[in-house]
Amino acid sequence: MKIAAFGEIMMRLTPPEYLMLEQTKELRLDFTGTGVNILSNLAHFGCQTSLLTNLPDNRLGEAAKASVRQLGIQDRWIGVSGAHIGSYFAEMGFGPRPTQVTYQNRRNSSFGVSDASCYDFDAFLEETDLVHICGISLSLTEATREAAFILAEKAHTLGKKVCFDFNFRPSLNEAHGISFMKEQYQKILPYCDLVFGSQRDLTDLLEMPLNETLDTDKQFEEIVHRFMQKYQIAYFAGTIRQYERDKHYLTGFLFDSEKYEKAAPREITNLDRIGAGDAYAAGVLLGYSESWSLIETVEFATANGILAHTIQGDVPLTTRKQVRHIMEQPTVDLIR
Amino acid sequence: MKIAAFGEIMMRLTPPEYLMLEQTKELRLDFTGTGVNILSNLAHFGCQTSLLTNLPDNRLGEAAKASVRQLGIQDRWIGVSGAHIGSYFAEMGFGPRPTQVTYQNRRNSSFGVSDASCYDFDAFLEETDLVHICGISLSLTEATREAAFILAEKAHTLGKKVCFDFNFRPSLNEAHGISFMKEQYQKILPYCDLVFGSQRDLTDLLEMPLNETLDTDKQFEEIVHRFMQKYQIAYFAGTIRQYERDKHYLTGFLFDSEKYEKAAPREITNLDRIGAGDAYAAGVLLGYSESWSLIETVEFATANGILAHTIQGDVPLTTRKQVRHIMEQPTVDLIR
Amino acid sequence: MKIAAFGEIMMRLTPPEYLMLEQTKELRLDFTGTGVNILSNLAHFGCQTSLLTNLPDNRLGEAAKASVRQLGIQDRWIGVSGAHIGSYFAEMGFGPRPTQVTYQNRRNSSFGVSDASCYDFDAFLEETDLVHICGISLSLTEATREAAFILAEKAHTLGKKVCFDFNFRPSLNEAHGISFMKEQYQKILPYCDLVFGSQRDLTDLLEMPLNETLDTDKQFEEIVHRFMQKYQIAYFAGTIRQYERDKHYLTGFLFDSEKYEKAAPREITNLDRIGAGDAYAAGVLLGYSESWSLIETVEFATANGILAHTIQGDVPLTTRKQVRHIMEQPTVDLIR
Amino acid sequence: MKIAAFGEIMMRLTPPEYLMLEQTKELRLDFTGTGVNILSNLAHFGCQTSLLTNLPDNRLGEAAKASVRQLGIQDRWIGVSGAHIGSYFAEMGFGPRPTQVTYQNRRNSSFGVSDASCYDFDAFLEETDLVHICGISLSLTEATREAAFILAEKAHTLGKKVCFDFNFRPSLNEAHGISFMKEQYQKILPYCDLVFGSQRDLTDLLEMPLNETLDTDKQFEEIVHRFMQKYQIAYFAGTIRQYERDKHYLTGFLFDSEKYEKAAPREITNLDRIGAGDAYAAGVLLGYSESWSLIETVEFATANGILAHTIQGDVPLTTRKQVRHIMEQPTVDLIR
Amino acid sequence: MKIAAFGEIMMRLTPPEYLMLEQTKELRLDFTGTGVNILSNLAHFGCQTSLLTNLPDNRLGEAAKASVRQLGIQDRWIGVSGAHIGSYFAEMGFGPRPTQVTYQNRRNSSFGVSDASCYDFDAFLEETDLVHICGISLSLTEATREAAFILAEKAHTLGKKVCFDFNFRPSLNEAHGISFMKEQYQKILPYCDLVFGSQRDLTDLLEMPLNETLDTDKQFEEIVHRFMQKYQIAYFAGTIRQYERDKHYLTGFLFDSEKYEKAAPREITNLDRIGAGDAYAAGVLLGYSESWSLIETVEFATANGILAHTIQGDVPLTTRKQVRHIMEQPTVDLIR
Amino acid sequence: MKIAAFGEIMMRLTPPEYLMLEQTKELRLDFTGTGVNILSNLAHFGCQTSLLTNLPDNRLGEAAKASVRQLGIQDRWIGVSGAHIGSYFAEMGFGPRPTQVTYQNRRNSSFGVSDASCYDFDAFLEETDLVHICGISLSLTEATREAAFILAEKAHTLGKKVCFDFNFRPSLNEAHGISFMKEQYQKILPYCDLVFGSQRDLTDLLEMPLNETLDTDKQFEEIVHRFMQKYQIAYFAGTIRQYERDKHYLTGFLFDSEKYEKAAPREITNLDRIGAGDAYAAGVLLGYSESWSLIETVEFATANGILAHTIQGDVPLTTRKQVRHIMEQPTVDLIR
Repeated sequence: MKIAAFGEIMMRLTPPEYLMLEQTKELRLDFTGTGVNILSNLAHFGCQTSLLTNLPDNRLGEAAKASVRQLGIQDRWIGVSGAHIGSYFAEMGFGPRPTQVTYQNRRNSSFGVSDASCYDFDAFLEETDLVHICGISLSLTEATREAAFILAEKAHTLGKKVCFDFNFRPSLNEAHGISFMKEQYQKILPYCDLVFGSQRDLTDLLEMPLNETLDTDKQFEEIVHRFMQKYQIAYFAGTIRQYERDKHYLTGFLFDSEKYEKAAPREITNLDRIGAGDAYAAGVLLGYSESWSLIETVEFATANGILAHTIQGDVPLTTRKQVRHIMEQPTVDLIR
Repeated sequence: MKIAAFGEIMMRLTPPEYLMLEQTKELRLDFTGTGVNILSNLAHFGCQTSLLTNLPDNRLGEAAKASVRQLGIQDRWIGVSGAHIGSYFAEMGFGPRPTQVTYQNRRNSSFGVSDASCYDFDAFLEETDLVHICGISLSLTEATREAAFILAEKAHTLGKKVCFDFNFRPSLNEAHGISFMKEQYQKILPYCDLVFGSQRDLTDLLEMPLNETLDTDKQFEEIVHRFMQKYQIAYFAGTIRQYERDKHYLTGFLFDSEKYEKAAPREITNLDRIGAGDAYAAGVLLGYSESWSLIETVEFATANGILAHTIQGDVPLTTRKQVRHIMEQPTVDLIR
Repeated sequence: MKIAAFGEIMMRLTPPEYLMLEQTKELRLDFTGTGVNILSNLAHFGCQTSLLTNLPDNRLGEAAKASVRQLGIQDRWIGVSGAHIGSYFAEMGFGPRPTQVTYQNRRNSSFGVSDASCYDFDAFLEETDLVHICGISLSLTEATREAAFILAEKAHTLGKKVCFDFNFRPSLNEAHGISFMKEQYQKILPYCDLVFGSQRDLTDLLEMPLNETLDTDKQFEEIVHRFMQKYQIAYFAGTIRQYERDKHYLTGFLFDSEKYEKAAPREITNLDRIGAGDAYAAGVLLGYSESWSLIETVEFATANGILAHTIQGDVPLTTRKQVRHIMEQPTVDLIR
Repeated sequence: MKIAAFGEIMMRLTPPEYLMLEQTKELRLDFTGTGVNILSNLAHFGCQTSLLTNLPDNRLGEAAKASVRQLGIQDRWIGVSGAHIGSYFAEMGFGPRPTQVTYQNRRNSSFGVSDASCYDFDAFLEETDLVHICGISLSLTEATREAAFILAEKAHTLGKKVCFDFNFRPSLNEAHGISFMKEQYQKILPYCDLVFGSQRDLTDLLEMPLNETLDTDKQFEEIVHRFMQKYQIAYFAGTIRQYERDKHYLTGFLFDSEKYEKAAPREITNLDRIGAGDAYAAGVLLGYSESWSLIETVEFATANGILAHTIQGDVPLTTRKQVRHIMEQPTVDLIR
Repeated sequence: MKIAAFGEIMMRLTPPEYLMLEQTKELRLDFTGTGVNILSNLAHFGCQTSLLTNLPDNRLGEAAKASVRQLGIQDRWIGVSGAHIGSYFAEMGFGPRPTQVTYQNRRNSSFGVSDASCYDFDAFLEETDLVHICGISLSLTEATREAAFILAEKAHTLGKKVCFDFNFRPSLNEAHGISFMKEQYQKILPYCDLVFGSQRDLTDLLEMPLNETLDTDKQFEEIVHRFMQKYQIAYFAGTIRQYERDKHYLTGFLFDSEKYEKAAPREITNLDRIGAGDAYAAGVLLGYSESWSLIETVEFATANGILAHTIQGDVPLTTRKQVRHIMEQPTVDLIR
Repeated sequence: MKIAAFGEIMMRLTPPEYLMLEQTKELRLDFTGTGVNILSNLAHFGCQTSLLTNLPDNRLGEAAKASVRQLGIQDRWIGVSGAHIGSYFAEMGFGPRPTQVTYQNRRNSSFGVSDASCYDFDAFLEETDLVHICGISLSLTEATREAAFILAEKAHTLGKKVCFDFNFRPSLNEAHGISFMKEQYQKILPYCDLVFGSQRDLTDLLEMPLNETLDTDKQFEEIVHRFMQKYQIAYFAGTIRQYERDKHYLTGFLFDSEKYEKAAPREITNLDRIGAGDAYAAGVLLGYSESWSLIETVEFATANGILAHTIQGDVPLTTRKQVRHIMEQPTVDLIR
């Protein structure tokens, strides 16, 4: 299955050794983004992947493309337009100190200013079996919104699978209210086959009511299945974080039209607090593309999410062998 | 309230990535010191701060001043005398391996050789509402001792608030015995309004007896209030470290003439084992300068101390927003 | 003389050791800009300096302010507006390979979106004797253009000295033609006392004709004096670069209303190819503020420009002692 | 007691800050190996140590020798032959992500191609009281196997103490089966006085049966004493790792011909997952060389192993003072 | 034109900042090799390129592949065999101090142990128009020699262009004498269309006599044309280095069957002394593939070689724009 | 010949990449000193060397000793006393910008406070054939002066060779005048066999008159031979620096009782401006210890001095092979 993604390439600038911005003049530069993260991980799992996006025609654009290739992603659908790359600075947290992200220039980025006319969707879709569309494109700009809708519709019409994640960021939606975003989500969901999200996305963004006569877990199951039926979604998946005393756990869930599976919770050990969601999504897409059982898929995807937290940066670089290792030999902490 | 401090600027040289000195040729250079730490933190809280000290008239002196300015502290009262900056090498500990500090040349530093004649205390005090005097000045040299006494007396006479910390370091007091130090403390305390210390400072350095008829906690309360009354101290504050199984907790306490509050213990996660005491002091001084309640003050100051342990170096760079965040949303470990 | 500047603080991101962007993940972060550069240098010469600009209210804005303070510049007139800092990536050249600069997001920066209403010019000018206005503000956005005009006019009216540099960048003026820029320059020049520029600025931007009956050097002198008379300019200064075989030389020139001096050319040895112009300007402003003779001023300013090329980054950190050293003892290459 | 070792010097190349190989172009270079590790630690304990090995006659060989000297080991018995140094890349694990070691070129290394004729065993043994022979020499090549046998025999004949560790690595023994290795072990053991190993080495490699009528702990004691009697071994020692919930503990054991002691388990905090076994061995050899009691020896050696996990790299650099500190003042985590 | 290469991927390990191996524990890791260098440069010129080689099936092999992709080279013909990657340590020279290269393990590398049976030449050649075969494959091992011959023959038979460079390294040919190497060269040359070499390769390796009745330059021309005719070579190219006082110049030459052009010598400024030959070859191949005139080609290729010396590492990353820049605007040393 | 030295081990702290102290928080730590430099170089030439000095009994002292061993110098005569190591910060110059050295704490160093009673000169001299005494010991403190005199006298009495260098530093002699230093030099010279110095040392420090009837070069020859005769010096050597346009040359000279040789001047290319004098001295001592001719010795020593300028840090790490290479194949700038 040829898997592609439509989304932004961003620069991530990170001070070394948990330093804060005021403490250092050194930064580590990585290229990242939801699409980059998911595809890179799938490429490390052995899949053929391709990213559809635009970059500026300058030295930064070239460096970004080189980095994407290094991650194993094909760069042939990366075009040129605009003049900027969005960036974010990540001051890495430690213990009780949170990781602090500061964004720069997302809306004016090459991706942000590219509308549908900047891409050749037809040619792109010819080479694609499944396309992931990052929900941030619905929040970013009018251009990215329009491009996302047209791409989703075209893909759906051609019988390609469409994967979508809500990825709602309050900081990107201060101008438009929730009701504006609800409209956007409602517009794209009918084209989608796989959706990543949470119960809150359904209740707060789509304003779907919970059936409060049921117990908590059943409420969740019921609302998800109601949502999936309404939009004809084949797979709905996401992660849940739990805090128990001073420990922190990750669990993944996955619904198909009939069933619902949850992984055993795994304790989170954080080297980097960003990127586990994309790793989880990559795991689910791998299971989907190879028709694994739901339970096999959630267990693998959750273990993959856990591993992503032990890797610096948002880009998960795990291989199948590494994920299997922590599932099968969790106490072997040295391989030689 | 314009807050100032009198104390030494030191160089801290730290190997990267928890390496020991033999393992690396790379060191990180920071400028630090009790005064620097407390004022920098207060500046990050929005206070106007100024440091009174001396540095050599050379490239290191200039670099030290630049660093102090960067931290938000005014450098106009930093004078020139002597030829050296005291330094220390910090081999950062990890797990059971302790952080190992090696000092170089403290007594011969520009600060160490500067007596009262090297400073213009009157002009300095005109611009100051509260001055922090680091207890190390009583241990360091005859010159610093004399300067500290004269400054404390002048400040007190002018109605400025004087803040003092015991900061007793056995390694700096091998020549003089305890009784010598007791005399020095007794000489400065009558000028002081706020004091940072511990029960041990009162019993072992001032040789005050405990009232053993009381239970442990009451003993503490009674001796502190007796001490405060004797020297007319308005605020007495400090921190207590507790070990419980393999965990490590920090609690702050704060007395005014009538009451006594203790913060809820917070677990310590160490990126750097040096500097929490100064962060706690900065928190207390902030609460004092803004007339917060005792309990508000200890809770904030303790959270600030905890954050300081998650920041590399001794200089706490926390803002009010960051401290409030871990008090109010302790499980939100990623802000974007 | 209290010297201030109005201009942008930018982030400069530089790969280490002459690497190109594709070759590294490490970048060095500096905060820079014409105003920052000139004021930092003047502060290192012992002047009191202050920067008028705006930064975003986030972690990057705070880090930028801390950096500006470290350089010796007062930060009290640095306000908050907008959400971004403009940045540029500098791939350092080596030998025949040129230094390559790639800009990101200049027009959307906090400075770029701040118009006159975002500043308190009156209060600022009360504390200022001379204000430097960077010519880039005339190219950047409508908001910066307007702010520059109002500031220049107010300063002039209050009898403050106004210093202006042409600093024309073709890449920032692709939309507007030369004739648009000519109008802008003509609008600001009547308020100016000191101007930095070149013969080409006069002929190509202001479209002033050369008197071709004179020999080359006289042509230059005549056009400059004509320009100075027209706009009542007290000082006109700039630098000339010469290539002779494989060597590269810098000469500074300086006009007052009557005379004209040129420095002896000095060979350029480049550690960093950016920032010599600002160092030259700082040297001229120092001479001006201390009423040095023209020839003393150009010689000092040119030596300072040469030194700036031996310092990494655009910010010249030279002291008077360092400039005097290379003027007086050029063969002493080790000081101990 | 002059302690020497016969074994390989390897290069260890480690990405910084827990990065994986794909994520960085920077590597840290260390020289390591079982002999290097044990001798370096003994040198830090104050013993006189010397390494017998061969290196290539090139820049890498010289750098390796310099590094070994820096660690406190005499380099006079390091000869020259062959053309390569074996190396390994260590991608440091974090939390559930295991440390991943990738070897390069062990069998073709200078050590790997050196047989007995490349060394002057007689002269070497004259200056040696105890020689440690790393079990890897029995797995590596025909040349190292032969050299190890001849050295062990000569040492034994001369009345020198011989110390041996099993150090069985499946990845080095894929060609030869277990029965081949059993023969090798049986050939060297009669010359040995101290042996480092585990119960599994006795049951799986030497194929000795357990006496299953005994309870587990007694089984272990019985098989070890049977083994020691058979080969006339004076000391048998090793470590055991235990997992309890999410914690990880280290215990050392030590047998002489009559008794058997086990240290209290200590929790492992890992900065580096490689090298604790060699640190444990160094602790046992120190106790042996100074005739400490068994229990003193195991407690010290286990604490030393724990410390080794908090030091980057495989080479334990602990001093007696550091080991005593964590045994006596485990909660003092800052020494100044 | 689809250009491919057959050759080794090596690790290059370089100490930073001109340090020697004894002076540092930090190394920079790059993946390099004649094929990698030429193809990467052609990819940066916009060509489609692919590398045929083998790597070990481990973490280093994966990292090497990722790096090759980052450089713009397709990795689909990179197979898996053997267990090692050859490496070299480059201690960078400065001024009179030469760059010192130390090799490790070339002959045992995955490439060194792979014979023709390890590759699918037919499928590879189907996608290739021109294949570059590095002459080092004739020196390395019996396996690489055989593979090179079979590949050259197959390519020639299929009408593909074959490019070959002599690349004779005395250190790799100590075992075999010159006459052995002469045979190998004579065996491959009949299949070749483009050859990179020097006059010395023809006289010393092929033992062709010079016609000493001609003047020096004519001798060169005559022997090259005689060589080209004998083996039916279409293009012969190479570089000449000249020393004039303390300067160092590079000139390229290029022959087709009729003409001969030499570039104007360009002064060398060295950031890195390795890799200019491969950059020159890439320039020639670009001109060849786009049918430029000889003189256009040598001028471009020589300028490219000069630029390669200003880039760290052996891999030339120059774009057409950069090469044109130094040809057309050599004094513009700052682009913004 | 066993060569030893008596002198200080200092810490050198150097910012990377030619940065100035204000520009960075990273420093490189090296251990250096005249004795360290000369002995390290002789050890790299294959000599057996040993350093006599004292260090503090702390982590820095241990790290210094480890570094000295790494350089190839025996550490058995390095004792323990005092509490500090002298240090200096070297801001590396570039082009016209000079290298700027800032000292810290030389006189209070462990070496500075150690008098003759802190060393066992007799045992040390038993193992020594030639001892180098750094002239700085005569300037540093009363303790080092006394120790130097006693050591020189004892060595001379025992028939050991004594080597001395003037090494006059005005900054260390501000308190004492020239006449004081003259006395010290006159006191030690009668014990010396080899002396390193310059004509200025003889005229300005020893106040010997020039014979102005001779021409310049003869004046030099005459005064040196007069000096050598007076104090019975066997060898007098030193270096001369010449500036010619923008180039910089080094020449070495060497006198025995009869002859006088000067090396051909060599152009200096500076990576580091410190340490060439010590490299020159090491070259002369090598020639002396192996009885080379004067001209062989000066040529080698001068080439060695030139190489030292291409190596970062003051410690020359050159081997005989490297020195011979630049003497014999100066245009071969890449060895592989």
